[in-house]
Amino acid sequence: MPELRRDPVLGRWVIIATERGKRPSDFNQEAEGDKGTPSNCPFCTGNEEMTPPEVAAVRPPGSQPDSPGWKLRVMPNKFPALKIEGQLGRKGVGIYDKMNGVGAHEVVVESPDHFKDLDQRDIEENLLIYKAYRDRIIDLSRDERFEYILVFRNYGSRAGASLSHPHSQIIATPIIPKRVTEELTGTQQHYRLKKRCLFCDIIDQEQMLEERVVLVSNHFIVISPFASGQPFGLWILPTRHQADYTQSSDDELRDLAGVMGRLVAKYKKTLGDVHYNYLIHTTPSEGALEENFPYGHAHYHWHIEMFPRLTKTAGFEWGTGFFINPTPPEEAARYLREVV
Amino acid sequence: MPELRRDPVLGRWVIIATERGKRPSDFNQEAEGDKGTPSNCPFCTGNEEMTPPEVAAVRPPGSQPDSPGWKLRVMPNKFPALKIEGQLGRKGVGIYDKMNGVGAHEVVVESPDHFKDLDQRDIEENLLIYKAYRDRIIDLSRDERFEYILVFRNYGSRAGASLSHPHSQIIATPIIPKRVTEELTGTQQHYRLKKRCLFCDIIDQEQMLEERVVLVSNHFIVISPFASGQPFGLWILPTRHQADYTQSSDDELRDLAGVMGRLVAKYKKTLGDVHYNYLIHTTPSEGALEENFPYGHAHYHWHIEMFPRLTKTAGFEWGTGFFINPTPPEEAARYLREVV
Repeated sequence: MPELRRDPVLGRWVIIATERGKRPSDFNQEAEGDKGTPSNCPFCTGNEEMTPPEVAAVRPPGSQPDSPGWKLRVMPNKFPALKIEGQLGRKGVGIYDKMNGVGAHEVVVESPDHFKDLDQRDIEENLLIYKAYRDRIIDLSRDERFEYILVFRNYGSRAGASLSHPHSQIIATPIIPKRVTEELTGTQQHYRLKKRCLFCDIIDQEQMLEERVVLVSNHFIVISPFASGQPFGLWILPTRHQADYTQSSDDELRDLAGVMGRLVAKYKKTLGDVHYNYLIHTTPSEGALEENFPYGHAHYHWHIEMFPRLTKTAGFEWGTGFFINPTPPEEAARYLREVV
Repeated sequence: MPELRRDPVLGRWVIIATERGKRPSDFNQEAEGDKGTPSNCPFCTGNEEMTPPEVAAVRPPGSQPDSPGWKLRVMPNKFPALKIEGQLGRKGVGIYDKMNGVGAHEVVVESPDHFKDLDQRDIEENLLIYKAYRDRIIDLSRDERFEYILVFRNYGSRAGASLSHPHSQIIATPIIPKRVTEELTGTQQHYRLKKRCLFCDIIDQEQMLEERVVLVSNHFIVISPFASGQPFGLWILPTRHQADYTQSSDDELRDLAGVMGRLVAKYKKTLGDVHYNYLIHTTPSEGALEENFPYGHAHYHWHIEMFPRLTKTAGFEWGTGFFINPTPPEEAARYLREVV
């Protein structure tokens, strides 16, 4: 069982792999990791037995689980960061705090195609992905041990992907992560003062100024945020106030599927074959929200954060929490807006 | 002039390069950057004219600034993240906040030798580095615009170094960085409850348990912290309570110089030719401290954080602020302790 340990100074939690901990010699091998080809790729059709049994799939009526023919598959990660079994087991060790590394870690194999990224599939194919996120968040939220469910996607080795077959990941954690707590706290502060959602205010200001807007669709607006920590970093925001990703309608998700494909195409046309990450920030579980944030859904606004991996973090960023962005968001937005 | 912009949601500041912002095509070139050889290295003897004029140096009595013969040189960074001239210029832009990117950014060229790292030089040579840090922090602290001075070192390209000649960097910022504020807030909370320094308590507990101790010298203790976010991450702590790096005696810094050389040797023997970072966390400027942290020097404890670059941060780490450490600190400490 992995352990969650709390840094006594910073208050942040860290996941420590206590079983099969990596030895010094294990790190070199990883750098040269085989990215897989369709024949040995565990995410390709025909290799279903290489993964743990699926927990969800889009497949023809009557077809067997873990057999070929699927359009999308979701299964537990074979090497999970957190484990599904067990109780939280909160414990003190002198001045330190720890708990069991309980959680869920799933993989969404987005399509049977080993090579096609979001910009190369059609909207209906991509829609399956955004619906699968919704279904999995709803399902995992039923487990009362989980306070937060993060959906994220690593595309390319520089973005941390260890397999090249396009996939997303979902991790459920037994605490609200620090970054999300910071967003909830910041937006709560704004709401207390103004009785308005901070993200809605940001959308209003960005729509007026236009200089950081990359695109606007029926239901979404994409901006390069004013204080983006990464060059060409983007926020994808639903234009109507909505705290919870799972409350998105099919129509909204279809629009989102189109937007995400267009953004990946814009990245590639502007920056070449970039590696990138995106992640969904949505509201925490109802229980955790009620306990910590009395305004509920009023102050938060779900969104996707997306960024190419162009810069390296060095001692300065680690030591300060500051980021240095070498491309002003206004310029990044202009480049991305203008490319078709 | 670069800009400091405040993220309205997270409250963190970001440095945005507004002049000569990087265009999409600038990023590829960087990846293949020439790491330099002694003939074209701006930090090698004989190439002094390739850098801005030195602000400090260790050189024979009577020798001219920016001429050969030096043992250590400090100069402004040719491509500074922050600029030394100008006023803070705090300004609101609708709901956003920004200020001028005022600060200092210096480079410490640690020795004329292009190839020798800390583990390959003798203690007296390394001592010059730790004294130079002390002198430069004292000097930069006289500038009342600066609230914090961070010393850090990037060794190797994976650690963010763009030149291979061993060097450290110093950045003075007009605000206390978020990471430092978090440390000060966490230790203040502990002090308010217990009237004790949290780092001193950590040292006591680690000395008793021993399992995470890597080495103990006359004045320092090195541990792999309980909730280390990085495999083989280390804290180097003075054993006596001391908030301010600049109050270290020559004797303490000589001891530190020896410890740092030993740790680099241990990293290399355990992990091969690793790239690594270290950074010094010391107390902020007196003015900034008084304004925000009424207990002054009582609750903080300066230290060095050091870590090899073995893992990649991916969507999960960015989205949560969680780190996943695949090597338990107890095991990392054992490997490093046992190698001689």
